[in-house]
Amino acid sequence: MQSKIMPQAGDKAVVLLSGGLDSTTLFWMLEAAGVLCLPMAVNYGQRHSKELEHATGIAQNLGRDLQIVDLTGLRLVLRGSCQTVPTIPVPHGHYADETMRATVTPNRNMILLSTAAAYAISEGAGFVAYAAHAGDHPIYPDCRPEFIAAMTKTLQLCHYSPIHLVAPFGDKSKADLVRIGTALGVPYHLTWSCYDDGKLHCGLCGTCVERREAFVLAGVPDPTIYQGHPEDVLV
Amino acid sequence: MQSKIMPQAGDKAVVLLSGGLDSTTLFWMLEAAGVLCLPMAVNYGQRHSKELEHATGIAQNLGRDLQIVDLTGLRLVLRGSCQTVPTIPVPHGHYADETMRATVTPNRNMILLSTAAAYAISEGAGFVAYAAHAGDHPIYPDCRPEFIAAMTKTLQLCHYSPIHLVAPFGDKSKADLVRIGTALGVPYHLTWSCYDDGKLHCGLCGTCVERREAFVLAGVPDPTIYQGHPEDVLV
Repeated sequence: MQSKIMPQAGDKAVVLLSGGLDSTTLFWMLEAAGVLCLPMAVNYGQRHSKELEHATGIAQNLGRDLQIVDLTGLRLVLRGSCQTVPTIPVPHGHYADETMRATVTPNRNMILLSTAAAYAISEGAGFVAYAAHAGDHPIYPDCRPEFIAAMTKTLQLCHYSPIHLVAPFGDKSKADLVRIGTALGVPYHLTWSCYDDGKLHCGLCGTCVERREAFVLAGVPDPTIYQGHPEDVLV
Repeated sequence: MQSKIMPQAGDKAVVLLSGGLDSTTLFWMLEAAGVLCLPMAVNYGQRHSKELEHATGIAQNLGRDLQIVDLTGLRLVLRGSCQTVPTIPVPHGHYADETMRATVTPNRNMILLSTAAAYAISEGAGFVAYAAHAGDHPIYPDCRPEFIAAMTKTLQLCHYSPIHLVAPFGDKSKADLVRIGTALGVPYHLTWSCYDDGKLHCGLCGTCVERREAFVLAGVPDPTIYQGHPEDVLV
């Protein structure tokens, strides 16, 4: 299931832009449809804060300013995840492995979406967009269709007028996103997926594995240089 | 309508404690029932940050440490409210007046509840409690029964195991809360309601008016010194 709500040309939408492949595809898709996008990212103390620099560059590529909200104080209450606790190692392996539970940051998406909705209300925007997709379902509870449906209802009721949740990728794979984005000219070389914070994508963590696989399945050249798989280098 | 979910003795619950009358009553009620409470407050840049000192004192009164999460970075996206924008004056008058819309902070409660749920997940607590009551309904969208119902569903789905939203005051007035709390021995003199940040409660803003009225309707002596109504002083 996916959210069927889509903004039209001229509508204003806050887009949660992480700097990764999925949200960049969504951002491009909405901009291509003439939606007035307000890209927003959150610094929640993530290990891979490098993604924020990538998100900034991606927004600039479309002539938009990225709103970065500093919520690093969340570190106090976001525990048990390798994304916010430096002493928990980033697991290597397939992105659907049970070990990837260590990458789940408690209730992160609800916090991000709530903050995005506040920004939307402040800007008079009626839409909030996020790029949860079918590949997220095995591990991330806050990407699943039933969560999206409940969040859709809650955001419609959180203010005097509804905020509409835009989540069009609920039934799409990451490979589908690469196909969609490639057709739109998404500059994937500007995106960052890795959960580690190295100079290059590690190629070994769940999200690197998923990224590599997506380009292969989509039949699209992968512009990413993976430290763990130098033979893949295509650029 | 109210949420029917209540934690039992020995259950762990994160309690959103603002330092005001409502949340203090809820905190006392849950502690009296033997619930293991984790009081939490958020500094979201509110004008009346004084409430955080009061919340700290209230938690200490029951031997608990208050978890204060610094989310002052939210100021960037919380606009249009006198609570977070110093140049917007705090409206005076009845708490149900339309002018009180200026006190609505965009999507504040969803942000607070999402953060509280993250804390609950991190602490292995299955409950999050907040004290929205019937008197909040005319003005605050994020206190209304339909919002509570939608948020209840969303919190049940945000993680691998459900987080239960505890909101038992949805059909109660503030006067009801004063009656309940007085029977439990709530130290109301420690609480802070005023939206201004003066030395005393102003007595003129919506929440001061509501507080005064609640004690009168409950037939309970009001321990509050109101700057605007010195004739009320009972202590």
